Amino acid sequence: MDKVYMDHASATPVKKPVLEAMLPYFEEAYANPSTVYDMGSRIKQVIEEQREKTGALIGAKGKQIIFTSSGAEANNLAVKGVAFARQNKGNHIVISSIEHHSVLNSARFFERMDFEVTFLPVNEYGLVDPECLREAIRPETILVSIMHANNEIGTIEPISELSSICREKGIVFHTDAVATVGNIPIDVNELGVDLLSLSGVSIGAPKGIGALYYRENLRIMPLIHGGIQESGRRAGTENVPAIAGLGKASELAIEELSEKEKHMRGLRDLLVNGINGRIERVKLTGHPEKRLPGHASFCIEAIEGESLIFMLNQEGIYVNTGSACASKALKTSPVLVAIGTPADLAQGSIVFTLDKSNTKKEIEYVLEKLPLVVDRLRSISPIWKETAAA
Amino acid sequence: MDKVYMDHASATPVKKPVLEAMLPYFEEAYANPSTVYDMGSRIKQVIEEQREKTGALIGAKGKQIIFTSSGAEANNLAVKGVAFARQNKGNHIVISSIEHHSVLNSARFFERMDFEVTFLPVNEYGLVDPECLREAIRPETILVSIMHANNEIGTIEPISELSSICREKGIVFHTDAVATVGNIPIDVNELGVDLLSLSGVSIGAPKGIGALYYRENLRIMPLIHGGIQESGRRAGTENVPAIAGLGKASELAIEELSEKEKHMRGLRDLLVNGINGRIERVKLTGHPEKRLPGHASFCIEAIEGESLIFMLNQEGIYVNTGSACASKALKTSPVLVAIGTPADLAQGSIVFTLDKSNTKKEIEYVLEKLPLVVDRLRSISPIWKETAAA
Repeated sequence: MDKVYMDHASATPVKKPVLEAMLPYFEEAYANPSTVYDMGSRIKQVIEEQREKTGALIGAKGKQIIFTSSGAEANNLAVKGVAFARQNKGNHIVISSIEHHSVLNSARFFERMDFEVTFLPVNEYGLVDPECLREAIRPETILVSIMHANNEIGTIEPISELSSICREKGIVFHTDAVATVGNIPIDVNELGVDLLSLSGVSIGAPKGIGALYYRENLRIMPLIHGGIQESGRRAGTENVPAIAGLGKASELAIEELSEKEKHMRGLRDLLVNGINGRIERVKLTGHPEKRLPGHASFCIEAIEGESLIFMLNQEGIYVNTGSACASKALKTSPVLVAIGTPADLAQGSIVFTLDKSNTKKEIEYVLEKLPLVVDRLRSISPIWKETAAA
Repeated sequence: MDKVYMDHASATPVKKPVLEAMLPYFEEAYANPSTVYDMGSRIKQVIEEQREKTGALIGAKGKQIIFTSSGAEANNLAVKGVAFARQNKGNHIVISSIEHHSVLNSARFFERMDFEVTFLPVNEYGLVDPECLREAIRPETILVSIMHANNEIGTIEPISELSSICREKGIVFHTDAVATVGNIPIDVNELGVDLLSLSGVSIGAPKGIGALYYRENLRIMPLIHGGIQESGRRAGTENVPAIAGLGKASELAIEELSEKEKHMRGLRDLLVNGINGRIERVKLTGHPEKRLPGHASFCIEAIEGESLIFMLNQEGIYVNTGSACASKALKTSPVLVAIGTPADLAQGSIVFTLDKSNTKKEIEYVLEKLPLVVDRLRSISPIWKETAAA
């Protein structure tokens, strides 16, 4: 087998029709969309069309979409944009303890500025308890940000239940949906959110493009000040080719979603059952059912995640771990700690994120190779020898 | 003549070798550079190579380059990054009164947070007086931001003189060099700046990429918080194709700079002399010599800039104006006001920004058409009839 790529949460290849949709905007239709002449105004029109397509993917109108340069920027714009715009209303932010770094560190940024941040605990499956949220809310709470699904353990949070608590109290609710958009059906109105972040990287659009959905009339302080592109909410010359790419990728994501979801779910179940049956002392992380259809994550006892990734790499298998030094977070994943994983077990984290392109044959290949690699690593592990003896 | 594009400050077509340098990173080498397996680490390496190339364009080392999504983001990161990082040292910022909106509005953002901003005046040519800067500096001044050249009037500021005043006093100096990079030789050490912003848009790189140079050890608060990409100074998955494009465009810009500069200067002088000789009551804006080699800007009496742009558009000529409603700033350009242009004259702003691709034949075509268009507009202008009668 040539290459088995199962790290689609980290990056996806740009789809051919997406790249084709981008190409006219490099050498030919290159004008600045803010210019008044025909070359510019035509491109302005193209951008508005993409805004509609991107909105359609999440049940929103085009004018509710702000294009950003990444999911991380969208998360920063949501958290900081609301906190700066509403700081006269209160100085308390609530987030879950398993948010992406871009939400977590945006919230932390305000701790230096007389804000308080509450980090909601999660249960062993990574679920936020709505009652916990209700208790955390104070009169000075202005923003709650809870991710739609966690990229490391795949758990899907009960967003509509959580957002309805905030709506009752007039608190802005943001969800980071980078992990879910394109993987499960999403409707911002059903979710009841005021703000939702998405990223092109996870749906076959190019790197360098993301978007923030916002409920109309919601005040947001721009993160990037300057001209009045994106209705004054995000300055800088629009990244036209990438916007065209996101529009096309959104269109394709809508078309393929139901089939893709079913396909991934089937493969994921094969993978989970296969791994559980073939490797001893392995634990599925995250919720067994309330999880992303293409997401399978485990902690394997007496294994070091990064070594595992390297060994699988040599077999042509590309997967991720929550505990890589080089992925530059803490070596012990804060997400795995939050769900109560013992530190030594958390070292053996492995994360598979599938896409429509993955096949049953690839899953079988992984199920053949992974146990061998685990055996090899355990055979040189002093920890394994101890626990096996115990 | 098919199309005469002379608005290169607004956007440039992506050069063919630049697009070719980008293409491998869409469908093939698509991995996330933060991953630890070979597909990812190879791309990480590619990014570092582009960093070196981009640095070389301005006399900097690769590690002094932070990739951003635009020149506007680079300007925001510079101003806000320094102001947040140094707010315990002082609360006074100095900028010129002709800065780009991304610097201007970033500074204004801090006025709401107990900061004061001083806007340095400019003379009739748009030049900042170093003595003015010296007088504006206070013990609590933490940042000075003065653009290298103004995109609307082409004037090049005496940056090394201005920065040396700040260096004496330990004040961080930033320059927005979006208009100069790729048009004149730039060396950050000769300029003596701590921070310098550049944009891909002006050098044949794609939209969606810019960079901030920073002096080593300078503390900057990230604008986009999250993971520790860009040495912890800018979070979000790297825009690999656009970074590859900026690297290639930087290489080409270095190669062609001296020839391009000479070529543009020749065409610009033809254009300036031609317009002065063929149209009455027209004023060159900005400095006659200390200006960008490819930049020619005028105010034409009794003309409305936006109408002029539309009429020229019909002749296949693409230029800009400082006074377009649709370019969404104030109708009267703040830059033209700052250099003392009477409001009615400022309405007739027209801006040509050339590139290496422009030809003498194109200049001749403009010199043939522009006087006709001006005559036509003046023939229906009540203001012109009044002034002509006076």
